[in-house]
Amino acid sequence: MKTEIELKEGERIDDLNIKGYQIIQNPRLFCFGMDAVLLSSFADVKEGEEVIDLGTGNGIIPILLEAKTKGKKFVGLEIQTESVDIARRSVTYNNLYHKIRIDLGDIKKVKDYYKQESFDVVTSNPPYMNEGGGLQNPHEPKAIARHELLCKLEDVISASAYLLKNKGRFYLVHRPQRLVDIIYLLRKYRLEPKKIRFVQPYEGKEPNLLLIEAIKNAGVLIKVLAPLIVYDENGEYTAELRKLYYG
Amino acid sequence: MKTEIELKEGERIDDLNIKGYQIIQNPRLFCFGMDAVLLSSFADVKEGEEVIDLGTGNGIIPILLEAKTKGKKFVGLEIQTESVDIARRSVTYNNLYHKIRIDLGDIKKVKDYYKQESFDVVTSNPPYMNEGGGLQNPHEPKAIARHELLCKLEDVISASAYLLKNKGRFYLVHRPQRLVDIIYLLRKYRLEPKKIRFVQPYEGKEPNLLLIEAIKNAGVLIKVLAPLIVYDENGEYTAELRKLYYG
Repeated sequence: MKTEIELKEGERIDDLNIKGYQIIQNPRLFCFGMDAVLLSSFADVKEGEEVIDLGTGNGIIPILLEAKTKGKKFVGLEIQTESVDIARRSVTYNNLYHKIRIDLGDIKKVKDYYKQESFDVVTSNPPYMNEGGGLQNPHEPKAIARHELLCKLEDVISASAYLLKNKGRFYLVHRPQRLVDIIYLLRKYRLEPKKIRFVQPYEGKEPNLLLIEAIKNAGVLIKVLAPLIVYDENGEYTAELRKLYYG
Repeated sequence: MKTEIELKEGERIDDLNIKGYQIIQNPRLFCFGMDAVLLSSFADVKEGEEVIDLGTGNGIIPILLEAKTKGKKFVGLEIQTESVDIARRSVTYNNLYHKIRIDLGDIKKVKDYYKQESFDVVTSNPPYMNEGGGLQNPHEPKAIARHELLCKLEDVISASAYLLKNKGRFYLVHRPQRLVDIIYLLRKYRLEPKKIRFVQPYEGKEPNLLLIEAIKNAGVLIKVLAPLIVYDENGEYTAELRKLYYG
């Protein structure tokens, strides 16, 4: 049973195909994409663990992680007031307020909000674009979600290093062209990359996403997994993708 | 026509399937593998350029690069006397002494041998293993070629940064599990990784090699290429692999 909530103008409710959960989205702000689904499957959250999602948008990652894992507590941190409002109503709607909390705040100020080393897992699907100069309107919510305007990759990684317990795990989805920045910054902040998976739209094509796991204060050597292929030669989801989406 | 050379005990002559070149190998020392062939195809050497191969072994990389590119001069640096001797006889045998020179020396001492910024391209197929402690005999030639006993990854990268001209190109073949070390050290020495290609034995399998291009003092953003697949589902070389081997 759903708790009654109010939908605002431009909002819609989408099915998540898991545990009957649904999510409120507003296309003017940001709708979740395949990257969020892939990240929530890639992230390894163990029973009883506490998780924070940095830049949570409409709360898609905490909601999917609550559905897919046995984690105890999921926090989503988001800087845009409208997104926080939507995320909180989705949490209420799915009766998840005892497991998921959405906080309004700035990734650059996590030290003001949370204790050091207070989470087992950090996830993030941050803005991908490191150029924002040519944008028509850098105050537009979509631009903030997509471009590194209010939050740079280094802010996410530095906040994660502060928030994670020793040997805690960090999960990121990002673009392959930022691979060097990602790896360099992770090691700089002692979040050692341990596992990486590239996502290719098709067999034989360049990857357009990457998923990476880093462990705080871990030793060297990384495992590069077989690529995840999204579509088969007929343009249909591969079996692995269907499983991620529909269980 | 070949120049006459003397073969020593345990040595054999192998065809390179290009320009009629052949190479002397001694299985007791080291025989070249697919990694050398892949690196020589991945490396982009332009007309008139000067190239140095660090840890050249039996000289396979300079010989293949001479065959495949229009580079002007190829130097191979090698620390093991026996390998230098074999490489020099292969150069002589193929009548390549006007284009290829094999130098006996230590990668850690390149400043004693060469001028700073004196090469357009550096290539290297260095030892892959960063552990040498459990080795039965660390003085054995094969162990020196395979383990970081006489030369660590950082020595190769630091030497390359010294040897390369501004915007010069560095090409490395290595194991995926060293990805973080490779990327971190390259950026540390201002050799910015610009292109990477993983090599998978089969579709859907984890990669077991990587090829990377770095450019001295270049800007950020890397291109992750589609993986190179070695064998098809019947265990035969893929079309791309056959082309690399047999032209």
